[in-house]
Amino acid sequence: MEDLLSKIIEKNRYLISKGAVADYIPALSKVNPNNIGICIMDVDGNNYKTGNYDVKFTIQSISKIMSLMLALIDNGEDKVFKKIDYEPTEEPFNTLFKLDFPHTVKPSNPMINSGAIVTTSLIKGKGEERFNRLLNFIRTVTENPNISYNEEVYLSEKDTGHKNRAMAYLMKARGFIDGDVEEILDVYFKQCSIEVTTVDIAKIGLFLANRCKLLEQDTKVCDARIASIVTAIMATCGMYNFSGEYAATVGIPSKSGVGGGILGTIPHKMGIGVFSPTLDQYGNSIVGYGIMSDLSKELNLNIF
Amino acid sequence: MEDLLSKIIEKNRYLISKGAVADYIPALSKVNPNNIGICIMDVDGNNYKTGNYDVKFTIQSISKIMSLMLALIDNGEDKVFKKIDYEPTEEPFNTLFKLDFPHTVKPSNPMINSGAIVTTSLIKGKGEERFNRLLNFIRTVTENPNISYNEEVYLSEKDTGHKNRAMAYLMKARGFIDGDVEEILDVYFKQCSIEVTTVDIAKIGLFLANRCKLLEQDTKVCDARIASIVTAIMATCGMYNFSGEYAATVGIPSKSGVGGGILGTIPHKMGIGVFSPTLDQYGNSIVGYGIMSDLSKELNLNIF
Amino acid sequence: MEDLLSKIIEKNRYLISKGAVADYIPALSKVNPNNIGICIMDVDGNNYKTGNYDVKFTIQSISKIMSLMLALIDNGEDKVFKKIDYEPTEEPFNTLFKLDFPHTVKPSNPMINSGAIVTTSLIKGKGEERFNRLLNFIRTVTENPNISYNEEVYLSEKDTGHKNRAMAYLMKARGFIDGDVEEILDVYFKQCSIEVTTVDIAKIGLFLANRCKLLEQDTKVCDARIASIVTAIMATCGMYNFSGEYAATVGIPSKSGVGGGILGTIPHKMGIGVFSPTLDQYGNSIVGYGIMSDLSKELNLNIF
Amino acid sequence: MEDLLSKIIEKNRYLISKGAVADYIPALSKVNPNNIGICIMDVDGNNYKTGNYDVKFTIQSISKIMSLMLALIDNGEDKVFKKIDYEPTEEPFNTLFKLDFPHTVKPSNPMINSGAIVTTSLIKGKGEERFNRLLNFIRTVTENPNISYNEEVYLSEKDTGHKNRAMAYLMKARGFIDGDVEEILDVYFKQCSIEVTTVDIAKIGLFLANRCKLLEQDTKVCDARIASIVTAIMATCGMYNFSGEYAATVGIPSKSGVGGGILGTIPHKMGIGVFSPTLDQYGNSIVGYGIMSDLSKELNLNIF
Repeated sequence: MEDLLSKIIEKNRYLISKGAVADYIPALSKVNPNNIGICIMDVDGNNYKTGNYDVKFTIQSISKIMSLMLALIDNGEDKVFKKIDYEPTEEPFNTLFKLDFPHTVKPSNPMINSGAIVTTSLIKGKGEERFNRLLNFIRTVTENPNISYNEEVYLSEKDTGHKNRAMAYLMKARGFIDGDVEEILDVYFKQCSIEVTTVDIAKIGLFLANRCKLLEQDTKVCDARIASIVTAIMATCGMYNFSGEYAATVGIPSKSGVGGGILGTIPHKMGIGVFSPTLDQYGNSIVGYGIMSDLSKELNLNIF
Repeated sequence: MEDLLSKIIEKNRYLISKGAVADYIPALSKVNPNNIGICIMDVDGNNYKTGNYDVKFTIQSISKIMSLMLALIDNGEDKVFKKIDYEPTEEPFNTLFKLDFPHTVKPSNPMINSGAIVTTSLIKGKGEERFNRLLNFIRTVTENPNISYNEEVYLSEKDTGHKNRAMAYLMKARGFIDGDVEEILDVYFKQCSIEVTTVDIAKIGLFLANRCKLLEQDTKVCDARIASIVTAIMATCGMYNFSGEYAATVGIPSKSGVGGGILGTIPHKMGIGVFSPTLDQYGNSIVGYGIMSDLSKELNLNIF
Repeated sequence: MEDLLSKIIEKNRYLISKGAVADYIPALSKVNPNNIGICIMDVDGNNYKTGNYDVKFTIQSISKIMSLMLALIDNGEDKVFKKIDYEPTEEPFNTLFKLDFPHTVKPSNPMINSGAIVTTSLIKGKGEERFNRLLNFIRTVTENPNISYNEEVYLSEKDTGHKNRAMAYLMKARGFIDGDVEEILDVYFKQCSIEVTTVDIAKIGLFLANRCKLLEQDTKVCDARIASIVTAIMATCGMYNFSGEYAATVGIPSKSGVGGGILGTIPHKMGIGVFSPTLDQYGNSIVGYGIMSDLSKELNLNIF
Repeated sequence: MEDLLSKIIEKNRYLISKGAVADYIPALSKVNPNNIGICIMDVDGNNYKTGNYDVKFTIQSISKIMSLMLALIDNGEDKVFKKIDYEPTEEPFNTLFKLDFPHTVKPSNPMINSGAIVTTSLIKGKGEERFNRLLNFIRTVTENPNISYNEEVYLSEKDTGHKNRAMAYLMKARGFIDGDVEEILDVYFKQCSIEVTTVDIAKIGLFLANRCKLLEQDTKVCDARIASIVTAIMATCGMYNFSGEYAATVGIPSKSGVGGGILGTIPHKMGIGVFSPTLDQYGNSIVGYGIMSDLSKELNLNIF
């Protein structure tokens, strides 16, 4: 298996130069573009790791599935989806275009920035508590108590995140956000700056695949239905405005982040973590897409 | 099993009055709103039929998956998706809003009207041949040689389909359609007017589930990859701008039509046909959604 | 005065090569790009003509102010503006973007194609009568009984006007157009193909300036209020999505056409006709804009 | 003349109840809806004042023409219109819809909030200086050294102006705003809270009509061309997405504010100030529109 994974990595390595590392903040542009890692974990307890599987990268938008789970745990499905819709959008991940339509009522979905900021606002807690609860939730699911956030990236995001700020104020104006906008943005910028490895995100994928239960643990962390909802939203919205093509060509419910990570989950089967920092026009890892595509074919993982 | 299906029908019957029969053409408004039917067919050859499973209704947008398959057979994936995108849209099924954006290059996906008209234009054939090839393809897949179209519905669609006509001319102007617009529209209006039963559409769902192979037949009708692509597109776009919520709450790749039908497919497992003519605001059968939701839970069919 | 006009022509001649002749139909691309003409007529009966003032060109969108006047005469202001709005738009002249917004009720204004097609539909008359009435109205206002349309241009427009056709069917679908779409389009394509000179359009500008009265004639052709409405709409919408900048930099209520003509009107003072066929990105004559700008400064014509 | 003005006031008084006082901040909702005032000042030095002409109201969007003039004085036309376009928009005054289009480069015009915030950012000065310069400019033009801002309104705007804040951050993200967003917003909120009477705004209208020269003063405050540009922009954009209809039915270049004021200017002739606090759906004084319409007819002021 590790042989296959290595072969897939080498087959897709040429794509590095077809994409570009995220450069909207200096901290992100400093990553090594040549790192490529894969980690696969299945429900039978098998783990496969190859390449730079243990190199840290910022979780970025992959955090959106964690904040969504916590918001669902805290509020229930009905309350969450009164503030956010479930629908994929053709607009890019940082759009606020639709938010000022007369006829639109909610951010399209929790996988784009606007929806994710609302999700974060729905996590319960005062002051530091909200972020700490999210961090702890991630530590629990990854079974990695050392996970923390990158202060430099966080401060950069906070300093230059004008468009996210614009979205947040617009959603405040339209009643989708309660509470203090800057406080919510602070949590959001911090959650995007959390550092993980492919092992950590494969664990999250496995947790979803295993219906919100940690392997070798008896108690569920949360209701299995949450895994099903989150997996469906990943399948329809997880790769931004490339989600439809990704579903048709890869068929693995996934969530990407501009840090270069892609998290995949095969219900009842396995979690996958892939990492390579150069991105395509949609903000998805370009090597990562190639790898997921090959994994899907070679391991017959396409759920459709 | 039939008992369970009957119970599910009765449980959802009250929803009839929450929706409304399509009335944009007189022929459609005349259907009996009280008909409800279910047919399920699995890859092991089991069939379950309940209620008005054998009442005919017009296939409408469910035909879009058949024309897509035929267009893929005729042209290959690359050529088809040069003219149509794979992406779900937040706009309603009959939108042409995005088509006149400076930055949009293709109709969003083949499940909304604009994309489906392009799909139809890609079916090979001259004059009558194009429609006849599609009709024969449907007859082959359903193993029902008696399938035909409803002349009255066809003429009504043709007479009043100004918005579809607008889309077609716009796509002609933007280079997505080759050939004569009125001729293509004629095929499109006819294909929407084809009459089927829940048995017929369950067969199509089974055909997709069985990877483009008819049960008890040795040869594939087309490549298994086509089943996978079409199923993914159904999962992300098949229920129009309700597709995301449907995926999260039902989790069965499906395609609806304003005739009241919903076709579901569970890869490698089964095909489902449901029929009830009153529609919700998105143009999906309102009872049909309730039934699919209950089937998903009771039979554990959610793929996510 | 003719000296000044000649100087202004020569000063702006270099702009010819900065624009491009309309080429969406072969007939238009054949015009001589080097023709430049000016004609000015004031309410005191003075006429000034320079350059290729008597070269014929197709009236194109300048016809929109004539069809608007006739629609107002035929129906009154209230009825016309129930079907068309008065508002300038940021979208290009051939947009249909806004027409499929859930919240938009009318084509933005009668100076863009969608609004102008509705205007034409409001002209009274059956069959040939509608176009003949418009042609006669133009002949009356220009006092030129020889005006006619260019058959080759008309047939080209009809043959390739897919986007206008799309708009018309969409407006039919949304209830802004009564009657047969193809018949209305036929009148619209013919009216765009009418051939005029700068003298003819200066006469129309003079007619507006003189409040709907021909010089040296006692009876008004129509109510003075119509001149005021049409002039205001020219000032706010007449140069498409460049109208605002044109108002701020030229300040002469004007209407352009892709045939290369620009008609200007100074209320109570004069009419101006300018012609030069190469166009800028908005579809306005590029030399024409330079000339109008210089005329405005030299003759102190800016109304703002 | 005052008789005529009184008659016009009484004729339009019934409209008070057709509109509603701005209530987005408590301070605004407390005004007396029954106040109606008119002040007209012509270039010959005649003044006509009727009704509640000396009641103070907040200037709100009428300040946009003052900040535009000052930005033009400070930067010149080229620099200002590199950051803001001249084009009227169909969107409401507080839209940010177009700002997140891939193809839009600038806020549409300086009369809507987004453009006006950019305008304010272009006024030179550090810290308090920027607002003080604007205030002094208004005092100079109105020849009223007592003009100041309403602290309560300012604090309310600042506290609840989330949508303006969203716009400002979005424009910061897209490079239309240099400098600190909150500092610019602070000036913007203060300028909207400046209190004036109909006499003050009539003076501004007169100043524009008199080509940037105070009556009975020899020196121009600024170049006459600025008057022409600002008047043109008022004519095309000054009444928000009602500007086109207002031009066609009233024909007086005007600017409204949600405080209930409407400022009109007739080039070379007169300035007009009208005040009545209840607003129509566009945010324009509903009685004010009636009065301007009657003034236009009775005094023959329509410039088109």
